[in-house]
Amino acid sequence: MKFWEDIVVGERAEIGRHTFTTEAIKAFARAFDPQPFHIDEAAAARSHFGALCASGWHTASVWMRLMIDHENREDAARLARGEAVATLGPSPGFRELKWQRPVYVGDTITYATEVIDKRASNSRPQWGLMSIRNSGVNQKGETVISFISAAFVERRK
Amino acid sequence: MKFWEDIVVGERAEIGRHTFTTEAIKAFARAFDPQPFHIDEAAAARSHFGALCASGWHTASVWMRLMIDHENREDAARLARGEAVATLGPSPGFRELKWQRPVYVGDTITYATEVIDKRASNSRPQWGLMSIRNSGVNQKGETVISFISAAFVERRK
Repeated sequence: MKFWEDIVVGERAEIGRHTFTTEAIKAFARAFDPQPFHIDEAAAARSHFGALCASGWHTASVWMRLMIDHENREDAARLARGEAVATLGPSPGFRELKWQRPVYVGDTITYATEVIDKRASNSRPQWGLMSIRNSGVNQKGETVISFISAAFVERRK
Repeated sequence: MKFWEDIVVGERAEIGRHTFTTEAIKAFARAFDPQPFHIDEAAAARSHFGALCASGWHTASVWMRLMIDHENREDAARLARGEAVATLGPSPGFRELKWQRPVYVGDTITYATEVIDKRASNSRPQWGLMSIRNSGVNQKGETVISFISAAFVERRK
């Protein structure tokens, strides 16, 4: 992770893409969201969705995974350049999460992130807070998920 | 699911409780949130969390699972009474998700839900919209997660 001081409001990154398979959609849904349209093709065809689609929590959890993978790649590059790496701290939460469209089997979602705010933390002087707008867009260019997240980021000593 | 007409603003339900195990915390995190404090006890002990704790997306996904299980139990009771069962429709999203405290290994979280708003849908006359405030509270009575979600619910014909 970048140190909080080096984060620039407005910077944007494509963090990765993910294709949702039948197997992964069903496995997530069986564990966490066993609604018929997430676990059974025939039931999904009869539903308002019209076909098997991923749980919204699955779409969001994949964002988290790609974000961590992205930061790990960035950190490896920083270390290779001899730079220090900051710690990503806890997240106080999220707001305005919207699932604009279903994610169907075979859809490839490209996730991107944009820094929209940063501020110091009065209560935790070793951390700064950043707010980022996250989105996932399918192969047709349609946004399927968007939300704003906050996270604490380590400050330089 | 209740039909939209039968939902009463202010009604509250305890939807279920869940104890987070080491194995489940690590399995979710390896798939979706492989940060050191979610997958490795020693790294977690050195982190700001102080011990292994669940991904916030895991805590949220368990809410979804308990919500579906709760609705399935309620629907079975309705059918046993000879009542009709409404369809739970898609969720446009949620807002104000807060992770107030970590969920550590062995914590038992009790999830509850409260209807805070309902309104008709102009664009989808067969559906009504409800907003519910959801929370998860640990065995010490501390809130660990809260958020407001929206969902479409079938209206009576």
